[in-house]
Amino acid sequence: MLTISKRGEMMPASPIRKLVPYAEAAKKKGIKVYHLNIGQPDIETPKMVLDAVRKSDFSVLEYSHSAGNESYRKKLVQYYRSVGIGVDYNQIIVTTGGSEAILFGFMTCLDAGDEVIIPEPFYANYNGFAVEAGVSVIPITSRIETGFALPPIEDFEKVITSRTKAIVICNPNNPTGYSYSRSEMEQLKELIKKHNLYLFSDEAYREFTYEEKQVSAMHLQDVDDNVIIMDTISKRYSACGGRIGAFVTKNKAVLDATMKFAQARLSPPSFAQIAGEAAVDLPADYFNTTKEEYRSRRDLIVQRLNAMDGVFCPNPGGAFYAMAKLPIDDSDRFCQWLLENFEYNKSTLMLAPATGFYGTPGLGKQEVRLAYVLNRAAISAAMDCLEQALKIYPGKTN
Amino acid sequence: MLTISKRGEMMPASPIRKLVPYAEAAKKKGIKVYHLNIGQPDIETPKMVLDAVRKSDFSVLEYSHSAGNESYRKKLVQYYRSVGIGVDYNQIIVTTGGSEAILFGFMTCLDAGDEVIIPEPFYANYNGFAVEAGVSVIPITSRIETGFALPPIEDFEKVITSRTKAIVICNPNNPTGYSYSRSEMEQLKELIKKHNLYLFSDEAYREFTYEEKQVSAMHLQDVDDNVIIMDTISKRYSACGGRIGAFVTKNKAVLDATMKFAQARLSPPSFAQIAGEAAVDLPADYFNTTKEEYRSRRDLIVQRLNAMDGVFCPNPGGAFYAMAKLPIDDSDRFCQWLLENFEYNKSTLMLAPATGFYGTPGLGKQEVRLAYVLNRAAISAAMDCLEQALKIYPGKTN
Repeated sequence: MLTISKRGEMMPASPIRKLVPYAEAAKKKGIKVYHLNIGQPDIETPKMVLDAVRKSDFSVLEYSHSAGNESYRKKLVQYYRSVGIGVDYNQIIVTTGGSEAILFGFMTCLDAGDEVIIPEPFYANYNGFAVEAGVSVIPITSRIETGFALPPIEDFEKVITSRTKAIVICNPNNPTGYSYSRSEMEQLKELIKKHNLYLFSDEAYREFTYEEKQVSAMHLQDVDDNVIIMDTISKRYSACGGRIGAFVTKNKAVLDATMKFAQARLSPPSFAQIAGEAAVDLPADYFNTTKEEYRSRRDLIVQRLNAMDGVFCPNPGGAFYAMAKLPIDDSDRFCQWLLENFEYNKSTLMLAPATGFYGTPGLGKQEVRLAYVLNRAAISAAMDCLEQALKIYPGKTN
Repeated sequence: MLTISKRGEMMPASPIRKLVPYAEAAKKKGIKVYHLNIGQPDIETPKMVLDAVRKSDFSVLEYSHSAGNESYRKKLVQYYRSVGIGVDYNQIIVTTGGSEAILFGFMTCLDAGDEVIIPEPFYANYNGFAVEAGVSVIPITSRIETGFALPPIEDFEKVITSRTKAIVICNPNNPTGYSYSRSEMEQLKELIKKHNLYLFSDEAYREFTYEEKQVSAMHLQDVDDNVIIMDTISKRYSACGGRIGAFVTKNKAVLDATMKFAQARLSPPSFAQIAGEAAVDLPADYFNTTKEEYRSRRDLIVQRLNAMDGVFCPNPGGAFYAMAKLPIDDSDRFCQWLLENFEYNKSTLMLAPATGFYGTPGLGKQEVRLAYVLNRAAISAAMDCLEQALKIYPGKTN
């Protein structure tokens, strides 16, 4: 019999995807849909970055080095130095998006049956990469009441077994926007040292912190062999379609093994490596404008949400996501209802139900993720919709 | 303990990579190295294809659809029609190179412990993807004496077990250059029908056949659910660095499951999708020039090889590789010796030892793969070197 593999069956579908037909149907009815559901920024890719590709001058679109162009990796050394991370260019493997960096980490460090602890809610695609690698995700819950701070270290200790090989953090966090403090990072460091665990640190949103500078896992001392950074230029320069990321570690054995995975797939995309290399030369104040824009959006969305009856939204310190608790019965049902049964001023909004970000079944039913990737006027109009929607939603709980 | 995973340990290193330091050392000594070891064509990427990217006009480098831009997939339908393959655009998932298409096929259709039969010698990276998927590669031997024709079907039958789920072919073949005949393809069809197996057909070199047109696995009748094509624009348009391929099947269940893997990694590279889309509009005679060039190189290299004492090189019908049997003790040792201990006219050549292309230990010790990706003058000079080398190589066997 022609069968689909078990992992093919287990592979989770995108939690947002099931809503897409409803969004399309709404649009067909002439309703404007504000997309606060996705992590695709509306910020323009810096012209200088796109121009580097457009002005490129070569006649053969060749494979690059499997670890990425040496010139790009050397440029990345400069970039990492600017954020207080000292690495050598041969400690960097350029990947096809941050996605591939995560997959490489799982493939290189974890065997089928091994366990990886991830504070939930977490980036849903970690589940997919875990299925590909046959790895079990052990979620420990961070709570909206604390703004999704790092769960107590005892919660980690409780679930550590002989199969536990790594902890994954995303910092600043998608979906919560939480930015881990120095003290939380130091606690994690003690934990990984004590139990000899890898720390996979997804730092896609490194630059987008609004209170304090991000504390990178590579700022931690004495854990060089434990730490692997999964990085990407996608959000940093609004260059999601480039599919350029980086796998960064000082662990020589991990680098050597990961290079074999990198060689099997030959090379990361050539065009976008040119873009990434140019991006490192953006003016030092490049992020200021972007950050100010995101900050003002965050301030607006958080203020609007907390002003609604029964809604709670902690103030996220980073990334461009906010998680809100709504007075609703079921976030999947509510998000579908918004698209299927609701309109206000000929508009509605699309949100990400938080259920897809939790590993523990049943959690996130009253929570949604809002990506503030639209301008303030659009956010304002979307919040008007949400406010009205919560007044009439049949599954309202208080 | 921080350990590398078993698959990280098992993951094969590139069989050519171990020779790279010797090539670099030779170059440092001022020796010119003719690279006949790699599949990176020297043919220029069509200007029209590069220009499509250079003239692209967008302001945000966005994620594309996880299956690739709809406009590109619709264009690919047109391309496939031109090679006698009728598919719908939603039967195509655009991948990050042919590499990802292979990985997707293994991940979706095969479980850890399953077996996949591959005629050897085969593209070495299949081993890597098999390790990633936990799948066992069962090689069956094709022989240089027959020009690497499809092994007898009885050889397949002998190794089929309850764990066998798929057969992988590469047609025209890397590394042998062999192009499967209609009759061989029909035999494979009966086999996959009889045993309900998937046929993964890597058709990266589809256009490069010098005697007869390629017979695609999708030209076979009544096996729509069994056949998956792994495709790429890398060799077709000399666009290896674009990292754009395609996963093509009419099997709905396979498509649905594979889409989940595609969604997990978000999207294939955006820039090179533009290139791929433009390439479909190349003039109908585009391949003629390229093919004539490759054919004349093939004719030269095959003639030169067979004129050398004790050398046998079957005439390859496709791709841009030739496999030759040399009068040597050990192809790995010989290829290293060429770089480390030999020069002629201040030159030497780099070849790929065939051992890396065989799954059966011990095979390929007298064989090397030559990629005719250099112009005729360079090939000629490289053959001069080889001829001299075979006269003085200490491990010569006859």
